[in-house]
Amino acid sequence: MPAIAFLECSRCHAHVSAETPQTLCPVCPDSPAGILYVRYDFSALAGTRPDDVIARDTAGVPWSGMWRYRSVLPDVPPVTLGEGWTPMLHSKRYAGVWLKEEGTNPTGTFKARGLGLAVTLAHHYGITKIAIPSAGNAAGALAAYAAAAGIEAHIFMPADVPFANYVEAIAYGAKVTLVNGLISDCARIVSERKEQEGWFDISTLKEPFRVEGKKTMGYELVEQLGWQYPDAVFYPTGGGVGMIGMWKAFEELEELGWVKPGRRPRMIAVQSTGCAPVARAFEQGASVSEAWRDAATFASGLRVPKPYGDAIILDIVRKSEGTALALTDEQILASILDWARNEGIFLSPEGAAATAAYDHLLQTGFLKPEDKVVLFNTGAGLKYTDVTAEAMKLSRPTAEPAMK
Amino acid sequence: MPAIAFLECSRCHAHVSAETPQTLCPVCPDSPAGILYVRYDFSALAGTRPDDVIARDTAGVPWSGMWRYRSVLPDVPPVTLGEGWTPMLHSKRYAGVWLKEEGTNPTGTFKARGLGLAVTLAHHYGITKIAIPSAGNAAGALAAYAAAAGIEAHIFMPADVPFANYVEAIAYGAKVTLVNGLISDCARIVSERKEQEGWFDISTLKEPFRVEGKKTMGYELVEQLGWQYPDAVFYPTGGGVGMIGMWKAFEELEELGWVKPGRRPRMIAVQSTGCAPVARAFEQGASVSEAWRDAATFASGLRVPKPYGDAIILDIVRKSEGTALALTDEQILASILDWARNEGIFLSPEGAAATAAYDHLLQTGFLKPEDKVVLFNTGAGLKYTDVTAEAMKLSRPTAEPAMK
Ligand SMILES: [Zn+2]
Ligand SMILES: [Zn+2]
Repeated sequence: MPAIAFLECSRCHAHVSAETPQTLCPVCPDSPAGILYVRYDFSALAGTRPDDVIARDTAGVPWSGMWRYRSVLPDVPPVTLGEGWTPMLHSKRYAGVWLKEEGTNPTGTFKARGLGLAVTLAHHYGITKIAIPSAGNAAGALAAYAAAAGIEAHIFMPADVPFANYVEAIAYGAKVTLVNGLISDCARIVSERKEQEGWFDISTLKEPFRVEGKKTMGYELVEQLGWQYPDAVFYPTGGGVGMIGMWKAFEELEELGWVKPGRRPRMIAVQSTGCAPVARAFEQGASVSEAWRDAATFASGLRVPKPYGDAIILDIVRKSEGTALALTDEQILASILDWARNEGIFLSPEGAAATAAYDHLLQTGFLKPEDKVVLFNTGAGLKYTDVTAEAMKLSRPTAEPAMK
Repeated sequence: MPAIAFLECSRCHAHVSAETPQTLCPVCPDSPAGILYVRYDFSALAGTRPDDVIARDTAGVPWSGMWRYRSVLPDVPPVTLGEGWTPMLHSKRYAGVWLKEEGTNPTGTFKARGLGLAVTLAHHYGITKIAIPSAGNAAGALAAYAAAAGIEAHIFMPADVPFANYVEAIAYGAKVTLVNGLISDCARIVSERKEQEGWFDISTLKEPFRVEGKKTMGYELVEQLGWQYPDAVFYPTGGGVGMIGMWKAFEELEELGWVKPGRRPRMIAVQSTGCAPVARAFEQGASVSEAWRDAATFASGLRVPKPYGDAIILDIVRKSEGTALALTDEQILASILDWARNEGIFLSPEGAAATAAYDHLLQTGFLKPEDKVVLFNTGAGLKYTDVTAEAMKLSRPTAEPAMK
């Protein structure tokens, strides 16, 4: 594993030391401050092929988790629950479609990657209390890794999160507060109280390691396609950390020489019409988003009124010749049922926004059927049974007598 | 992949052809008829090491799923959703304990292995309608694989199954009937109606391939421990298919020469005091179980009043010098919280019966701390949020105002 050389600001490109915990760029002249990217000295990896450096067990079998990429991750002992190396499922109907099934991660979502690495570093730094605002899934992941690391977790979630998110956070022993509001309200509470309470704020993009953990999705999708880029990647975009992380992975992969530089995938940011700040900014040609009012969608992970990384996300979408679009909750529910009934895969609402977006962009001609695309299912449908059942107008029916 | 040589009866050892679909042994002289084991001609594998034959992708990376063992599975095209090759997590507290995390399977449970293979074969045979009685998790798995294969699924579940099981089965498009009764009542309904309806009965042990799929757990646990046996395996035992499958795997591994014959693991059947037919029969020295009356436990997968394979399970437990024991729902819940808070792992109630059983057998001296044990978490805790929340007396609390 490489030692971290420095942290680099996304805006002013200042170099910041990783010897002590960092949040946002401490020297950015303007607000909002830039986020910090982890930079390594990769010279020891010059001339390697991925096979030479992927971590293996004692029998020589490559690790089935994100720490298979330990050669490009920070050189600290992992706090791990087996996250990453999730299935890349080939669609049974669309020759060009692969589904990256992140629902098999610990705690059932892709959040395990970012929070697994962020807690790993928090543990390394000796941090004892962490706080997070969460639309639901980050809460479960933080609570699990904090429990594994022996760190106290303080979690703030909107009151209408799926019940599963609440139950797991409590089971893991986290201190949970439900808030009558959105994730932005939760974030404000964390921000207001953290200094007094001594909490380290692990909010989306406000420390460097959630992006760094999520970048493993970029390494994985490329490895699972034989170290080649697909034509497009569909990414359900709430905070957008995964898109930022994957783009960082593509840069590193080219720097390492593991992937031929050339046409990177078109990055497609998928949102819900109930909360579509990035899609609206993209359409309007704006470089940042405006806060979305009255955000409402059953895809709770997409209920982020103004992502902190909006400028970076919009830049990636544009320079990759991608697009950003929003689907209605009706389209999302229809795609959940379509994939469940025809592929045997129970998507999260966020994942179904991506599958619905694929159908839409095929219809408009933006993509052709022969284009090779990766659709991200960011969480297990099982985590959303209550909201999905509600959207399906499904309740527990009367039972048939056992007819003894 | 090897062609199936024949199916062999567990009782009368008759050889039965696999050219057409089979259920129980058709020639057993006495009732209950024996179950059918899949037998291959392994001569082509003589002298191989596992590394020589484990399936790999085009880049040479071993498949991360149960079909990595295609060399010891039936030679037919898989209906797969990425099942198997689940994490083997080393406990953070007990040096000798590994947790086999089956909750990362498609549909969130170990049922994906058996039903994945059973549906694969049903598809191969051209079967168009399948019926199953289920305590909950088998329903979800059957519904998913049936959807993937384009087969009609008819599911009968007790009315008090976790809501998640009901929702997913409906989402996958299965025909679901809830029954006021136990899984044994559901089984009777399937049995009474199957002929008239043209359903293939895929009930536990009543066809040969659920055991065959579950045997991959035995291959995996041995591979993940460096092709060595642990000292003991703790297995939550409802129908007990996994224990029967793992024992078959151990026999095959020794026949193949991939594992040195010698001391196989002690097989420990774990049940709930609310439904403990195997544990009671074991204590009483009986060779079969008696139907448990008024079965009741929130570990719904353990609510099987009389497993069809009871004699085989009891025989395995005894000849492996294992044991069978039952834990109370209170002990199970306490172990859920213990593992969530101290390991960051949210167990299913069935899995927590295994972890509680480990604690108990350590206390009694049956096992020593230095014994290497594998505990099976057969499903994701997320699938049980409603029943676990109920056991925890947890409901959605009042939210804090957003304090705008
Ligand atoms: Zn800066
Ligand atoms: Zn027989």
